Amino acid sequence: MKTTQKKNYTRKDRASVDTLRVLAAEMVEKAKSGHPGLPLGAAPMAYVLWTRFLKHDPECPSWPDRDRFVMSPGHGSALLYAWLHLAGYGLSMEDLKNFRQWGSPTPGHPERGLTPGVEATTGPLGHGLAMAVGLAMAERQLAARFNRPGFPVFDHLTYALVSDGDLMEGVASEASSLAGTQGLGKLVCVYDDNQMTIEGPTSISFSEDVRSRFLAYGWHVSVVSDGEDLMSVQLALENAKAETQRPSLVMCRTELGAGSPKADTPGAHGEPLGAEALAATREHYGFGDKPPFFVDERVASNFLALSQAHNSARLDWEAALSAYVGKHPELGAELERRLAGRLPDDFEDVLKSGAKSSFSGKPPVATRAASGKVINILAPVMPELIGGSADLAPSNKTQIEGEPGAGALWPGGRNVHFGVREQAMGAVLNGMAVHGGLAPFGGTFLVFSDFLRPAVRLSALMGLNVVYVLTHDSVGVGEDGPTHQPVEHLAALRAIPNLNVIRPADAFETAAAWSLALGGKGPAALILSRQNLPVLPEGDLAYQGARAGGYILREAEGGVPEAVVIATGSEVSLALEARAILAGKIAVRVVSLPCWEIFEKQSREYRDLVLPPNVTKRLAVEAGRTFGWERWVGDKGAVLGVDEFGHSAPASVIFEKLGFTARNVAGLVEKL
Amino acid sequence: MKTTQKKNYTRKDRASVDTLRVLAAEMVEKAKSGHPGLPLGAAPMAYVLWTRFLKHDPECPSWPDRDRFVMSPGHGSALLYAWLHLAGYGLSMEDLKNFRQWGSPTPGHPERGLTPGVEATTGPLGHGLAMAVGLAMAERQLAARFNRPGFPVFDHLTYALVSDGDLMEGVASEASSLAGTQGLGKLVCVYDDNQMTIEGPTSISFSEDVRSRFLAYGWHVSVVSDGEDLMSVQLALENAKAETQRPSLVMCRTELGAGSPKADTPGAHGEPLGAEALAATREHYGFGDKPPFFVDERVASNFLALSQAHNSARLDWEAALSAYVGKHPELGAELERRLAGRLPDDFEDVLKSGAKSSFSGKPPVATRAASGKVINILAPVMPELIGGSADLAPSNKTQIEGEPGAGALWPGGRNVHFGVREQAMGAVLNGMAVHGGLAPFGGTFLVFSDFLRPAVRLSALMGLNVVYVLTHDSVGVGEDGPTHQPVEHLAALRAIPNLNVIRPADAFETAAAWSLALGGKGPAALILSRQNLPVLPEGDLAYQGARAGGYILREAEGGVPEAVVIATGSEVSLALEARAILAGKIAVRVVSLPCWEIFEKQSREYRDLVLPPNVTKRLAVEAGRTFGWERWVGDKGAVLGVDEFGHSAPASVIFEKLGFTARNVAGLVEKL
Repeated sequence: MKTTQKKNYTRKDRASVDTLRVLAAEMVEKAKSGHPGLPLGAAPMAYVLWTRFLKHDPECPSWPDRDRFVMSPGHGSALLYAWLHLAGYGLSMEDLKNFRQWGSPTPGHPERGLTPGVEATTGPLGHGLAMAVGLAMAERQLAARFNRPGFPVFDHLTYALVSDGDLMEGVASEASSLAGTQGLGKLVCVYDDNQMTIEGPTSISFSEDVRSRFLAYGWHVSVVSDGEDLMSVQLALENAKAETQRPSLVMCRTELGAGSPKADTPGAHGEPLGAEALAATREHYGFGDKPPFFVDERVASNFLALSQAHNSARLDWEAALSAYVGKHPELGAELERRLAGRLPDDFEDVLKSGAKSSFSGKPPVATRAASGKVINILAPVMPELIGGSADLAPSNKTQIEGEPGAGALWPGGRNVHFGVREQAMGAVLNGMAVHGGLAPFGGTFLVFSDFLRPAVRLSALMGLNVVYVLTHDSVGVGEDGPTHQPVEHLAALRAIPNLNVIRPADAFETAAAWSLALGGKGPAALILSRQNLPVLPEGDLAYQGARAGGYILREAEGGVPEAVVIATGSEVSLALEARAILAGKIAVRVVSLPCWEIFEKQSREYRDLVLPPNVTKRLAVEAGRTFGWERWVGDKGAVLGVDEFGHSAPASVIFEKLGFTARNVAGLVEKL
Repeated sequence: MKTTQKKNYTRKDRASVDTLRVLAAEMVEKAKSGHPGLPLGAAPMAYVLWTRFLKHDPECPSWPDRDRFVMSPGHGSALLYAWLHLAGYGLSMEDLKNFRQWGSPTPGHPERGLTPGVEATTGPLGHGLAMAVGLAMAERQLAARFNRPGFPVFDHLTYALVSDGDLMEGVASEASSLAGTQGLGKLVCVYDDNQMTIEGPTSISFSEDVRSRFLAYGWHVSVVSDGEDLMSVQLALENAKAETQRPSLVMCRTELGAGSPKADTPGAHGEPLGAEALAATREHYGFGDKPPFFVDERVASNFLALSQAHNSARLDWEAALSAYVGKHPELGAELERRLAGRLPDDFEDVLKSGAKSSFSGKPPVATRAASGKVINILAPVMPELIGGSADLAPSNKTQIEGEPGAGALWPGGRNVHFGVREQAMGAVLNGMAVHGGLAPFGGTFLVFSDFLRPAVRLSALMGLNVVYVLTHDSVGVGEDGPTHQPVEHLAALRAIPNLNVIRPADAFETAAAWSLALGGKGPAALILSRQNLPVLPEGDLAYQGARAGGYILREAEGGVPEAVVIATGSEVSLALEARAILAGKIAVRVVSLPCWEIFEKQSREYRDLVLPPNVTKRLAVEAGRTFGWERWVGDKGAVLGVDEFGHSAPASVIFEKLGFTARNVAGLVEKL
């Protein structure tokens, strides 16, 4: 395809589409950085989608029943911002001119929370598509819960624009396969099929038959052979919308950098066109005699009129909602609470009393099992709690009892079978959290958090309240061996900003961890043991202390510590045993430090109370890499950790061999 | 499928297959842990593959032209070990009885290097399949380089056994799509299609049409409706072998836990059958009256005879190789050197003189560009150097100039277009390294090392000499914003055991980084700048010092440092500027610390020389999280880092805002 084939445009359409293109190219040029190629090629299909299909209202970007749109190739941000500006989302022309500048609402890739109308932060390819799957699952779950005859509270579609790069990423494959199994009829992905990558034509790396692949996943697929033909795009989108049992992929053949001298070459992708090529492009689209950043009045009014088309629908929805709340006051109250992201009023009471009756004075229990118990304590009072595992539910203990699996047959089911697809699970959880109204969680083994990482990073970047349930948290995994034994993962997760990494020492700390995770303002990773751990007799203290991130679990004899042993998770019991061994010899305080991040946010006073600066004899004990522990033990302290990969053997043997015994811990304290 | 349908077995076949099954189930039972389900169901297909197709010789497990076999679902290890024992790989019956015990060569999941006959460490699903793709690419590349008419030095197949779980993982999707584009006719995957996952039947999470999906990738696919029918399996494998233009998938319908009372239930997957069910299973297979771990003499001799079938082929190959070496002495010497994993004799000379002429006294250059230069200095003398990028070659500078892209048309090409598939790229590099004879490297942005992580971990666990080229290494990425700016990734990579993370400060340190990476005994991550950095005038010192992991780059005035500034990568020049600002006020030593891991391996004496214990005024400067730097600066030191996500703006603006200016660094030193 060497020249664009404009078809079925009115003059207004044509001027509008070309304004999007030229604005985007100009933004990139002015920023001296960015991606003009996608906007130039994908503007027609995006225009049809945004102006003829997307149900939205710029006056109320948070309208709960709006259609969702995700720009999965986040590098297409200039196109999105140009449209948000024209559609009246409050982005000014000045904002467009400040594309990619410090503090502007028009950053290089779309960022949720920074720009009205941007639903999700995108950039890491594949994740936008996978989050769209989560958005569509969220819509279905909420519809099943709240809709009543005559009151369709939730009835919207999820659209995503996707690129070659998205479809090459494994996370998109995982999510698309899952979407097929889930039969997400309200998910529509439009594929900017420009057959060009950074390294050259897609034939060099991506020669697969995308249509057949998505049919194999159980999707509805249509092909638009000319993405410049507005009517073909429209008909394909109508068909996609009419398909209610399967997700839809609309493949539109486009041309990267259409209308520019660099069209259909990799050079059009990721750098400004340059003054000369930009001039030729403006000329091509009839902007040769116009000033930069020009928007014709008729174009401006066209976009505004089209974007206001759903305003009355939104007002009708709000009116209907009032009636709904009147007729179903309890559901109405629940809806209001959930959309506001508030926990139930009795959350803490339910959790604490449930934990007390389940755990107090009970035999040792693995923290993964305690976590499963907590999920089931909370599930009845938190209908927003939804989640599952990447095919490890019986091990991760993520099952909500008596609840069906989520799927087309049980659209309201809260147990999600993600399959062996960790990364997509994370992205789907992000999509659910982005939607609002749900409290999503997902489980796998801690060692496989490596597969989750790109999703965890996006949870943290967006500040989403996603709970990652990561069990089998050390060499305590035992016989499965080093491929299944996390060693570096605690450190690697702690390195991520805005993520609370919480490793509870017992069942009570596990309850506190869930309280922190669900009540926080960002994601949390719960790090849970495979093996049983004693329930701490200090139940209330453990619960409250864990909520502070760290606390004095057991004070030194006589109240004046000569040494402090700091531990997390399964090693806390070990520290307590070592303290007992040293009784009468060394006065040892045991500090449980389940969450560094929260402890660091406590006052200096509190932190110094827990870890007195004058007590320099400090030993940290954690069955993971020692990396980073210097922060807590200081120059004169020591760390007992695991700095090499693990071993296949019974857990007790491994712990013995690696020195994780009370006697060895006591010995290390004596050595200090 | 509720009962097994044995077909086309001779009595010997039947006894042999059933011995594999029962041995595996007994191993799991004795270990009190493991996975009996896969071995019971997949034994027939594995038997056909191993005994009728696999070209191998237990007398010489390292035979370079052996067929490769990868057990992608590593939890099927008991089946593999049972066969390796029977085939004569030197695993004793005692080893089988010590399955999953401390120090045994039969760990929970197969580990390369620990067990003869195990080609690759597997367990993280999807990676075995993806490594098999790398193995097949390696074979093709080596064949193109070394084969001569009448001397097919390399002519072998790569087989993998794959499972539902593998096929759900995104990395397998990425690798399979790439394998299709690459037209890997010598890759054959046999799929243990038991339609059962840990959470239930595959219908709950994996309802896609696998056959159509792989056809869409460009594979040859055949379906064996009864995996117990040996002749059907054999015919399908013959067809797969006959297909030379496309990779082949042989789908065999099997039954998880076949022949046990738990057959076709999730319970058969991952725990011992239990005494009662094991007894019933042994009874079912005619072992009711036999002692545990029983191997009939005829079965033993059958396996030995079958595994010795290729012994003469191996001896013929060795004889042919001698003739080949005689006729092609240079290629013969190269082959010997490459298979031994030795660098060329003139490696250091070529690298140092190339670096000197390319960089000495030259204007500032980004370390990613210096890395690209080094690749092209080495490529002519290192024909084993092969690699590419996940569709970012122009940015990662990973292109070997004048060399075609690897593919069916140019099987010897050394530029690999991986597509936007980071995780599969890592796994394919692992597969190439596992094969031997190649020095593989792969590039992406540092921020996307998150996608690579599961592969990097396996590189480290196996000790493979893979080079990860990770560019755009800080907020210096600039306008692309936080989704593209690594912040936590240096810390997260340093957390991985056995991985050298090297962040060079200039072009000379970059050359040293490549020397360390290619000459090391494990993987390396090269962390490279997007932005230009001054070439250090101390060229030789920088090269030698970087090879030690860390060194005194510029001594304090007067030779007695009052303070030490420790920096890496792009921040080293900043430290030098700060030192200049403080001249006459504070005597500052600047230490460049490009690789913690290697520096830590230096003698205590050397380390104390570089970082004198009595100089406690230490400032670390690195544009990444401060996490872990306490190790180097101590209680009285300070760290200038980036502890929050980044920003979209020009790099210079970001650095200024975050305090990465010479003046601020100088101020922080004064404050110490």
